[in-house]
Amino acid sequence: MRNNARKIVWHPSGATAEDRGPLLRQQGCVIWLTGLSGSGKSTLAGTVEKQLLEAGHLCYVLDGDNIRHGLNADLGFSAEDRTENIRRVGQVAALFADAGLITLVAFISPYRAGRSHARSAVPAGRFVEVFLDASLPVCDKRDPKGLYRKARAGEIADFTGISAPYERPEDPELILPTDTLSVEQCARRVLEYLRDHGLIAPRGEP
Amino acid sequence: MRNNARKIVWHPSGATAEDRGPLLRQQGCVIWLTGLSGSGKSTLAGTVEKQLLEAGHLCYVLDGDNIRHGLNADLGFSAEDRTENIRRVGQVAALFADAGLITLVAFISPYRAGRSHARSAVPAGRFVEVFLDASLPVCDKRDPKGLYRKARAGEIADFTGISAPYERPEDPELILPTDTLSVEQCARRVLEYLRDHGLIAPRGEP
Repeated sequence: MRNNARKIVWHPSGATAEDRGPLLRQQGCVIWLTGLSGSGKSTLAGTVEKQLLEAGHLCYVLDGDNIRHGLNADLGFSAEDRTENIRRVGQVAALFADAGLITLVAFISPYRAGRSHARSAVPAGRFVEVFLDASLPVCDKRDPKGLYRKARAGEIADFTGISAPYERPEDPELILPTDTLSVEQCARRVLEYLRDHGLIAPRGEP
Repeated sequence: MRNNARKIVWHPSGATAEDRGPLLRQQGCVIWLTGLSGSGKSTLAGTVEKQLLEAGHLCYVLDGDNIRHGLNADLGFSAEDRTENIRRVGQVAALFADAGLITLVAFISPYRAGRSHARSAVPAGRFVEVFLDASLPVCDKRDPKGLYRKARAGEIADFTGISAPYERPEDPELILPTDTLSVEQCARRVLEYLRDHGLIAPRGEP
């Protein structure tokens, strides 16, 4: 093959997020769930994921289970490593959104700077910050992983809410008070937000 | 809400790759394109991506453009950083495959260990190693980014093929001699492989 011919033929196609949207009746976006340990992030992510899949939408959950054991297996829990953990999660979420997926992120992500950095990685209107506003006593009482108990016993250092700060979102897209709302109520609000903002097609529309 | 009630209601749903497959008439997988700079990886990835999207399949390309400026912006080109670059790409590709996407990866990825690590991150049968077997003189002559010229001038250290090794795949799923095959011929072989191995539905089947 002549080099000139190759120069013409071998060019990248450059598919964009817009090329993928119609395929899925959705716009790629990041739903960033933030809140204390025990505030219900993983459970809400799983419930929204299930409802979206049942409605024919493609979505994916990024959480400690699939990130900490793989991509971020090299990171510990120092302040520096936690910052890097959230930085990478934000970048990966942006790639998933660019691929057209509704991307649910479930990490405590206690710092505004980290969440702001994640927001800046996706186009405007494609980042939905959801604050699961649960009170510390309720989270502490639930303690699904026994982490509060360990943190209080001094077995875990720098535990958010106990010995490390949680910076409340200043202007999130959604605030869900999970002390009082059920997971179904929370999931409904997330799906309503997605419909109202054109991120998924309204019911019955293609 | 009582804690007991919450324990029952707030459970994760645990959607799997199998839940997503039927939605897209495809199985999530990684198509790992490896070869010298100038062997045609990015161009082939773009062409396959376009053809898959036109056929209604969802896919995504991971390459230097979207990885090096975001997720791996903290990495340089030392041996250690290159290894970490490919490690992260392999882990992200595995997440995309788990999400149900046909994931095209276009990195030189010169070391067997790095490719083997990426393979081990996805289930058996979901990793398609494609060796773009172009000769060094042809790649050097094409030199689409002017990198061989710079490497020969000593402006780039450890450049694969010039001053750093390329370890040829020992048992790749596909070998594409891009000195002689056109990009269309190469794309056809990749799509045939996907159909033959049940990773995308055959033509005309749902």
